[in-house]
Amino acid sequence: MTELSRLPGVGRKTALRLALHILRADEGVGVALGESIINMRRGIRYCSVCHNISETEICPICADVRRDRSVVCVVESVKDVMSFENTGQFAGLYHVLGGIISPMDGIGPDQLEIDSLVERVAAGGIKEVILALSATMEGETTNFYIFRRLAEYSDVKITQLARGVSVGNEIEYTDEITLGRSLLNRTLFSDSIRR
Amino acid sequence: MTELSRLPGVGRKTALRLALHILRADEGVGVALGESIINMRRGIRYCSVCHNISETEICPICADVRRDRSVVCVVESVKDVMSFENTGQFAGLYHVLGGIISPMDGIGPDQLEIDSLVERVAAGGIKEVILALSATMEGETTNFYIFRRLAEYSDVKITQLARGVSVGNEIEYTDEITLGRSLLNRTLFSDSIRR
Repeated sequence: MTELSRLPGVGRKTALRLALHILRADEGVGVALGESIINMRRGIRYCSVCHNISETEICPICADVRRDRSVVCVVESVKDVMSFENTGQFAGLYHVLGGIISPMDGIGPDQLEIDSLVERVAAGGIKEVILALSATMEGETTNFYIFRRLAEYSDVKITQLARGVSVGNEIEYTDEITLGRSLLNRTLFSDSIRR
Repeated sequence: MTELSRLPGVGRKTALRLALHILRADEGVGVALGESIINMRRGIRYCSVCHNISETEICPICADVRRDRSVVCVVESVKDVMSFENTGQFAGLYHVLGGIISPMDGIGPDQLEIDSLVERVAAGGIKEVILALSATMEGETTNFYIFRRLAEYSDVKITQLARGVSVGNEIEYTDEITLGRSLLNRTLFSDSIRR
């Protein structure tokens, strides 16, 4: 029960409820759950190319020959890979940093997969690196650090996610920095209806 | 007191507090407040060009010769004009629709300043119309309606605010439609540091 209550969002009461459920069910159910957790934990590793979680040396995304290998989308975490995959708008590869530069939390560039990103770019074949980090101070700092590290590869285009009004949001409740950026980056209306 | 409590955000208790404040102050204070409210309400009118509030026939923005008259930013309300002015990123003129197409609220194109926008464009001299409406269903509907109404003026560029990640927002909490749009509209990183 103590172990269960260490899961995020699981307090003492929920842990008790889960424990009782497992106890009430057939023994096989509990053992299967325990084994699958052990196997998941032991079986998982990180893709040697993009550092996404994977059960194999190379993750299914990096191994997919239909994907565009010339575009790499740099994200903070494994969760972000899933978010971008769910958009259905990206057919390139990823690079998972495993965090973001954050001096307050003692996280510097060395703790992140930035060297391996530079190596991937240096190896050639990459035409565009999309910086898809949060639009926060830490995200912008990390973007800028990566931009400088990749500056010598002048034939590689470095882009970042558009800043703008979030879909579903009203102008009235949008901050003025975002409004300013959305004006500067305005797009042709006809492009939006073609999609 | 009943009149005061009709103001937005002013309930019975606040109205009482305001009323007592006015009573406690010198008579001149109360009369000056009342007169300035009457003068504001009577003196205000709408700019005959952009329909922004104004004390004159033509508002100060439309009358400002330093502003770029070839770009018109279409907004929903007077409040939005202030928001865009505060960004410091826009030196063109505005056109205030006075609302947004919303069948649920019984607001159709005829109740809005759309005909007058088409007339402004038809009069010539405008090279770009920026649709700066909310990224909501109603905003997109209004955008599309205006786009069709202006379709015959093929030399006028119709743009809209960038959709994307709002400044300060984390990827983890950004919806996937917005992420998809921010990928499609990604910008050169080097453009962002020049600003």
